[in-house]
Amino acid sequence: MPIINPNFEKLVQNYLFSEVGARRVKFEKGNPGVKVYNLGIGDVTLPLPPSIVEAGKSAMDEQLKKETFRGYPDAAGYPFLREAIAAWYRGLFDDSLCPATDEVFVGSGAKDDLYAIQQGLFAQENSVAIVEPAYPAYIDANVLAGRKDHIRFLPTTEATGFVPEIPKEKVDLIYLCYPNNPTGAMISKSELQKWVDYANKNNSIILYDAVYSEFISDPDLPRSIYACDGAKKCAIEMQSFSKRAGFTGMRCGWTIVPQDTGLRDKWKRYRDATYNGTSYPIQRMAEAALSERGKREIAENLAYYAENASIIRRGLTGAGLRVFGGVNSPYCWVKIPGKMTSWDFFDLMLERANVVGTPGSGFGKSGEGYFRLTSFNTHENTAQAVANMKKVLS
Amino acid sequence: MPIINPNFEKLVQNYLFSEVGARRVKFEKGNPGVKVYNLGIGDVTLPLPPSIVEAGKSAMDEQLKKETFRGYPDAAGYPFLREAIAAWYRGLFDDSLCPATDEVFVGSGAKDDLYAIQQGLFAQENSVAIVEPAYPAYIDANVLAGRKDHIRFLPTTEATGFVPEIPKEKVDLIYLCYPNNPTGAMISKSELQKWVDYANKNNSIILYDAVYSEFISDPDLPRSIYACDGAKKCAIEMQSFSKRAGFTGMRCGWTIVPQDTGLRDKWKRYRDATYNGTSYPIQRMAEAALSERGKREIAENLAYYAENASIIRRGLTGAGLRVFGGVNSPYCWVKIPGKMTSWDFFDLMLERANVVGTPGSGFGKSGEGYFRLTSFNTHENTAQAVANMKKVLS
Repeated sequence: MPIINPNFEKLVQNYLFSEVGARRVKFEKGNPGVKVYNLGIGDVTLPLPPSIVEAGKSAMDEQLKKETFRGYPDAAGYPFLREAIAAWYRGLFDDSLCPATDEVFVGSGAKDDLYAIQQGLFAQENSVAIVEPAYPAYIDANVLAGRKDHIRFLPTTEATGFVPEIPKEKVDLIYLCYPNNPTGAMISKSELQKWVDYANKNNSIILYDAVYSEFISDPDLPRSIYACDGAKKCAIEMQSFSKRAGFTGMRCGWTIVPQDTGLRDKWKRYRDATYNGTSYPIQRMAEAALSERGKREIAENLAYYAENASIIRRGLTGAGLRVFGGVNSPYCWVKIPGKMTSWDFFDLMLERANVVGTPGSGFGKSGEGYFRLTSFNTHENTAQAVANMKKVLS
Repeated sequence: MPIINPNFEKLVQNYLFSEVGARRVKFEKGNPGVKVYNLGIGDVTLPLPPSIVEAGKSAMDEQLKKETFRGYPDAAGYPFLREAIAAWYRGLFDDSLCPATDEVFVGSGAKDDLYAIQQGLFAQENSVAIVEPAYPAYIDANVLAGRKDHIRFLPTTEATGFVPEIPKEKVDLIYLCYPNNPTGAMISKSELQKWVDYANKNNSIILYDAVYSEFISDPDLPRSIYACDGAKKCAIEMQSFSKRAGFTGMRCGWTIVPQDTGLRDKWKRYRDATYNGTSYPIQRMAEAALSERGKREIAENLAYYAENASIIRRGLTGAGLRVFGGVNSPYCWVKIPGKMTSWDFFDLMLERANVVGTPGSGFGKSGEGYFRLTSFNTHENTAQAVANMKKVLS
């Protein structure tokens, strides 16, 4: 047998969601007829807007005729979509800050890109700092690239609004994610500017995960790291159509690799060697999601989820709990009262309130003592879940 | 700046297709009004069959309703498609040889999978043998994985029907591709069995690229390496919907990682960490491509391309040239008469016959003295191109 990738063997299985599922199934089997309210869902649930589906079907119809048939896409994405993404940035802030069309790389989603970028562009020996609690894929990606012993976590706490402190020493690669999963926290533009300044001073690269940016309702908060001066010199940004436009089943996202980082042409070469592009009809759907009509239709879905987050916040705050996030984010991060662990609280909520959430400790040490609730269920189920929780906690 | 991936810097730019394009453009500018016949096309040109587009549109309509909406797909693919692929194998040979459904991994295409498999599963220090002339992506993938100095080529010649000789010593990873790109050659089942036996004896893994398998018309030739006894112990196979079903713009393929290789569960873990699955409507289209109606419709397209290959073979053989491939493959591999190099012949054909092909030397040293012609243009253009070539060569 060839020698197996040794980094692969260092991956740790994250049992978080399988353990959540197993405990839920056990409860349901032991309590037939009891309705369980799932606020642990990490996937969108509302259907796609009609204009987006129309764009996809129309692109498929083009594939029926020789004159309009399209074969291999450009690995970087079709110009129509790269331009629509560049235009989205121009709607956010001053042109001088905006990524150019040829700095936009279309892909199949942020998870794929997060892995490929760090593995393809950067050497193994770089040091890596990861905001914590965190999406487990950041850690998996770096372990697979041979950096298991080079990872340091940047713990976040209530005291700093779940934004980490800037390291004293130099770090090569820095993972930041705002709106944050799982804490639901947002970072202010001035705080983010400090990270950009740190990165430029230390020649670091920030990998900025902004896949929840469309959940931001406060116009003063940055939907992109490029709102900050100098970010084009030090930041790679990932955005996704998954949560913003309901594309989790469609698969489309984008990554910005600015020329000023010195990495754009390298990334293009890497992609050309390892990727044959994103499906044409899906790229047309993504283009529709960025159109004026698409944005209006998407806004209705996002408002629906925002109302759920608001139901959770209001209800649990009213019951005396401290609730973070849920304003510019689909996630609510609930401080567990007393000394209960995340898993003890999970069991209590499942058994007594019949509500499923996600134990914060599953996202890293700093998550201990917290409970994540998501806004992806229906209004009715969300309201009932909150009512049940309040009853148990009163 | 973080340290750049040193393997990345070792990639060699393959200028083959850009150089072909540049010479063509220069000729067209210098000769306005002259029609150029492109038999260099490496992409399908016929539109998708109606049943496949219907399946995609119907899947998109499901995304319009809450009851039928689907979010994240399984990273390994939907069970309906994995099962349809397993059934395709059961139509080829005895059940005991067939991969099981849970050994099928759906992906976005063979190029992506070719890269990910060798980079994710295997350590850098493995030795690699690559059939040559070759698809440049095999080399790029291994260079990116740090194996630039571990690659040895397996040159192929007319004498052995463009099948390489089995190495005397042990090699860890072996890339084979049949029907072959660029030579159009096929391997017999008994020859392939020898490779499987070699791999099992030496504990090697064969990475078998069978993306052109549906172009095989001879029922005695193997459409899959699993036709061979013991292949499930040593072979990973890649297949694609791109050329067989016109999916180059849709993006879907599959990889078989048999449990008996000891790699199946590792590959699953790797995919879960780095990939969020293939687009749902595209998976429905792929399922339709494997249905009885889909297969009938696809067969018409494949027959159209086969007729082009036949026009090239007959025409150029009639002009006294030696032509290989073009029977169980969309590629014809033409022996250049005399002592001309591939690029000299390219220029001659462009300037005098107004035909664009691909110089064989662009696929590796063993390709020098050959010229690749493809069957993806129309009947009319293909016939005229061949007539022009005959005139120049007579």
